[in-house]
Amino acid sequence: MQQAIAILDSGVGGLTVVKEVMRQLPREKIIYFGDTARAPYGPRPADEVLKFTGQIVDFLIQFDPKVIVIACNTATAAALDEISSRVSVPVIGVIHPGARAAISATNTGRVGVIGTVGTIRSGAYTTALKQLSPYIEIVSLACPSLVPIVERGEFRSENVSLIVQESLSPMKNYNIDCLILGCTHYPFLRETIQEVMGPHVKLISSADETARETSTILYNKGKLASGDTLPIHQFYCSGDPLLFRSIARQWLGEQIRNIPVLWQVTRLG
Amino acid sequence: MQQAIAILDSGVGGLTVVKEVMRQLPREKIIYFGDTARAPYGPRPADEVLKFTGQIVDFLIQFDPKVIVIACNTATAAALDEISSRVSVPVIGVIHPGARAAISATNTGRVGVIGTVGTIRSGAYTTALKQLSPYIEIVSLACPSLVPIVERGEFRSENVSLIVQESLSPMKNYNIDCLILGCTHYPFLRETIQEVMGPHVKLISSADETARETSTILYNKGKLASGDTLPIHQFYCSGDPLLFRSIARQWLGEQIRNIPVLWQVTRLG
Repeated sequence: MQQAIAILDSGVGGLTVVKEVMRQLPREKIIYFGDTARAPYGPRPADEVLKFTGQIVDFLIQFDPKVIVIACNTATAAALDEISSRVSVPVIGVIHPGARAAISATNTGRVGVIGTVGTIRSGAYTTALKQLSPYIEIVSLACPSLVPIVERGEFRSENVSLIVQESLSPMKNYNIDCLILGCTHYPFLRETIQEVMGPHVKLISSADETARETSTILYNKGKLASGDTLPIHQFYCSGDPLLFRSIARQWLGEQIRNIPVLWQVTRLG
Repeated sequence: MQQAIAILDSGVGGLTVVKEVMRQLPREKIIYFGDTARAPYGPRPADEVLKFTGQIVDFLIQFDPKVIVIACNTATAAALDEISSRVSVPVIGVIHPGARAAISATNTGRVGVIGTVGTIRSGAYTTALKQLSPYIEIVSLACPSLVPIVERGEFRSENVSLIVQESLSPMKNYNIDCLILGCTHYPFLRETIQEVMGPHVKLISSADETARETSTILYNKGKLASGDTLPIHQFYCSGDPLLFRSIARQWLGEQIRNIPVLWQVTRLG
């Protein structure tokens, strides 16, 4: 049987990684777990996020995936190192791909990062960026109001514009040329964020970049799927399946219209 | 002693990878070999390119590098698999990073590739793109006139515009939204290529993308350089050292103004 790419998130944010993996690697089978019953992870203490992430990994590892993608910045900051040392398959987080893409994209070296309270407090982007280049200047900002609007399925409205505007206003004083969307929920709000920041600021989606690096790593390990059979993806969530499925269908759109998908609800912990 | 990133090319084209590695990974030491005495590789038969690449790798491996980057599309197409199986350090070619970046960047799925006769004849980009996604449409075009103008240090002039225009004219009929610069010499001509193709076509530099993936692979192997000591880079070429040094200084510009560099001439074969 074809080994899958396992992707996990606190809720629906990781679907932004799913969408890009489906687009960039259409032959790959995906098994997704969204911990919607316990989302958001952003305000939770790091040890709780580590525990929850460990439970999801224990669930996903049963499917013998070829790679595990922690498609949540908060969980990556809290759990990537521990999970990597615990399982034998490669584990990919979303923070380093975003950091590498920002360093590749910036011209001025002034990079902004937005994320949850947990991600920003961890300093994980600053560490990752500084590890690559000591010359980068970083402006970090926690935007705790953004995940809840995405988790309830609100992507584009006057209310969204107001919340995004208010959340990002401190970032507008710093002359950055590149902004890392350091939370996989934020690409749902990409258009509004671009409008608020202006056209001269390049937006880096940690989700898109993680899909690309998953492709790099699978290629380098000789693990890319081949053949012409369409994969059957599997989606699991821990909370309300109707809301989850509706957001997934809306976001993934045409990419799941013609392919078989299995939907399941599973409680953890 | 700090292990270096070894980078090789048929001539000066690989300096486009060097420039990006210096920018994205300023702590990393680089050892470069440009086979300027035998450039261009593009029109040569594949077995000759394989032999020349093997000789350069034998030279570079003496320095105990942590990774070898074949910063030449022609040499990647002809020699990547064989070199990878022959040495124990990771070997990175320029074709797959460019292919992955194009799949990530395209919206319409219509991707153009320009390269040398050797690269285009090998079909290596088509194979790499189709391995990732069966839905990509690819238009390939050999542009044999472009490498010689770069190798003689001519980057921007009316003559360059005319040659680029003539070389790319067959590509303009195909409604692509993304063009892979499938030769590391072409970023020297980037501005002219962008003018000829128009602003709606995204240019993908296999050089930039390879630097980024070198970063990914070193990170995943725990091999990124740390510390605050500036590395001393080493540049070797097989032909005229004055022309090589002048092109390198012009292209790398401020990035080598304040750092120590060792220049050498070495004949191979």
